[in-house]
Amino acid sequence: MGTQVIVLNGGSSSGKSGIARCLQAVLPDPWLTLGVDTLISAMPAAVDEGIGFAPDGGVSVGSAFQRIEDAWMAGVAAMVRAGARIVIDDAFLGGAASQRRWREALDGLEVLWIGVRCDGVIAAGRELARGDRVVGMAEAQAELVHRSVAYDLEVDTGSSEALVCAREIAARVR
Amino acid sequence: MGTQVIVLNGGSSSGKSGIARCLQAVLPDPWLTLGVDTLISAMPAAVDEGIGFAPDGGVSVGSAFQRIEDAWMAGVAAMVRAGARIVIDDAFLGGAASQRRWREALDGLEVLWIGVRCDGVIAAGRELARGDRVVGMAEAQAELVHRSVAYDLEVDTGSSEALVCAREIAARVR
Amino acid sequence: MGTQVIVLNGGSSSGKSGIARCLQAVLPDPWLTLGVDTLISAMPAAVDEGIGFAPDGGVSVGSAFQRIEDAWMAGVAAMVRAGARIVIDDAFLGGAASQRRWREALDGLEVLWIGVRCDGVIAAGRELARGDRVVGMAEAQAELVHRSVAYDLEVDTGSSEALVCAREIAARVR
Amino acid sequence: MGTQVIVLNGGSSSGKSGIARCLQAVLPDPWLTLGVDTLISAMPAAVDEGIGFAPDGGVSVGSAFQRIEDAWMAGVAAMVRAGARIVIDDAFLGGAASQRRWREALDGLEVLWIGVRCDGVIAAGRELARGDRVVGMAEAQAELVHRSVAYDLEVDTGSSEALVCAREIAARVR
Repeated sequence: MGTQVIVLNGGSSSGKSGIARCLQAVLPDPWLTLGVDTLISAMPAAVDEGIGFAPDGGVSVGSAFQRIEDAWMAGVAAMVRAGARIVIDDAFLGGAASQRRWREALDGLEVLWIGVRCDGVIAAGRELARGDRVVGMAEAQAELVHRSVAYDLEVDTGSSEALVCAREIAARVR
Repeated sequence: MGTQVIVLNGGSSSGKSGIARCLQAVLPDPWLTLGVDTLISAMPAAVDEGIGFAPDGGVSVGSAFQRIEDAWMAGVAAMVRAGARIVIDDAFLGGAASQRRWREALDGLEVLWIGVRCDGVIAAGRELARGDRVVGMAEAQAELVHRSVAYDLEVDTGSSEALVCAREIAARVR
Repeated sequence: MGTQVIVLNGGSSSGKSGIARCLQAVLPDPWLTLGVDTLISAMPAAVDEGIGFAPDGGVSVGSAFQRIEDAWMAGVAAMVRAGARIVIDDAFLGGAASQRRWREALDGLEVLWIGVRCDGVIAAGRELARGDRVVGMAEAQAELVHRSVAYDLEVDTGSSEALVCAREIAARVR
Repeated sequence: MGTQVIVLNGGSSSGKSGIARCLQAVLPDPWLTLGVDTLISAMPAAVDEGIGFAPDGGVSVGSAFQRIEDAWMAGVAAMVRAGARIVIDDAFLGGAASQRRWREALDGLEVLWIGVRCDGVIAAGRELARGDRVVGMAEAQAELVHRSVAYDLEVDTGSSEALVCAREIAARVR
């Protein structure tokens, strides 16, 4: 049984989605990409206890969001058990605790854990270049999401192009 | 145990997504909306045996797509079993056969089956108004997706606004 | 010299953009569609004296925005004078005063003035169905934008499909 | 009279739009950004003699498109003459001939001509990372758009971040 899941963890504007698209292009088999953005766009516009974007880029999530996220994680894992290969594109706002939640959901599956690093100042510049509405998330999350998280491989989009990072990751897929 | 899944089945440009958003707004609990569009945007840009859009609006899907879709369906069902309420926004290109696949995936869950009707000529006009790239899907799918499909309720977006349809559906949610 | 400009004036979620796309499809010559949304997306993310969206759907624009909008209007008129046919998709937040500004900019050109009506309750439902971020604009603007504005033709998207409205308008283009 | 127009010329996926957004953020006055993408999205979905995207990434434009583009250029220049400051985000598919057309339209205005370079291989990787539908344009245009074009300043997004390029450009704005 080869690699079944690739988890890309990095802050906002760190370039995870670009790497995910390149991975889909360079890997020989079809891989789905699902991420926290997929989940958020599936949610009601107004989830009362949902996600808060502070003016400084901080993000807080309520308990209703966490319950839904637990069900989402269980479902993503079930897709893999049913035969899909999945790239998970996430930002571990809870650091090691977020990784633990995914570890439990993905229990028994072959997972490749990837840290997507990008210097906060560079990520903030890219956030500006992308014209995102909520400014400040890139810098706020750059270090935060990696706290005490363990990886099989780390890539740095500040110094390497997304496609180069994707090729390094693909070389580790079994 | 109340309603856990609402399946909206209708052709392209029949107004399913609008109804789904209204449902999320009028239902008291948080419901996720996941659809075939979510799956397609999660797939690689080039799935070899993937989806074909014929110039006349016909859509064909290959076996690789069907295998991934099976895993996707299993995962969506698992999200519901893990506690999420989900609106499924789909177009049953295979008619009754598509419904059978979802029925098997959702086995044991409380499902509300909704037919979203829209006259082909009206749907084609809305497709034009939306500026979709692939023209012709609305008309091609208007009748096709409902062939031999059984519903708990049918709504018609040609004669009722999305919000009105959503309220009718919500009244059937237990 | 036939019709050179079609001005569509209607509130948010009244269906102007859909009519504009249908017009582009049914009119024999190529028409450009430019609107206040085009201008807004061309502006810096943060225009200090720019546009304010109140929680109740109200919109206020500052003097810097108005100066830029004056230059924009002059440029759109110049495109027409240089030979382009243009559909202008706008919401006259200032009612008759907004019309006067366009009248001055388009001085000497053949203009067809179209009122795009939609009952506020229906428009609010469509706003919900579209999942817009700022809720309340549809209802707030439904009557406001038509105050003391004079039209060559009025259409009602609450009772007619966009394509039908477009055909009525196209029949008036000379 | 200071700088009134900044023309950014570069191939597809060279990073012009990112630089434009950063320029809008770092320049003290409000600047509009208008580009060939603005024009294309304003055009009818089907312009018969319009734009052709060849499978190899080549782009061809017909005479109807060129006539509309001439009117567009005249209008953009008129906006500047009416007081707007504008960043033009374009890809000179005709090289020096494209520059000549803009030079004539912008006659008498203070223009800063910027070449946005990006190595074709790097641009092609970024095209993949962005998930663009038409693949191949980045590589096809990387050199083509710069043929015999004269610049006030050239920046290279292959070696510098968009924000850094924007700051270099902003330093030349008078």
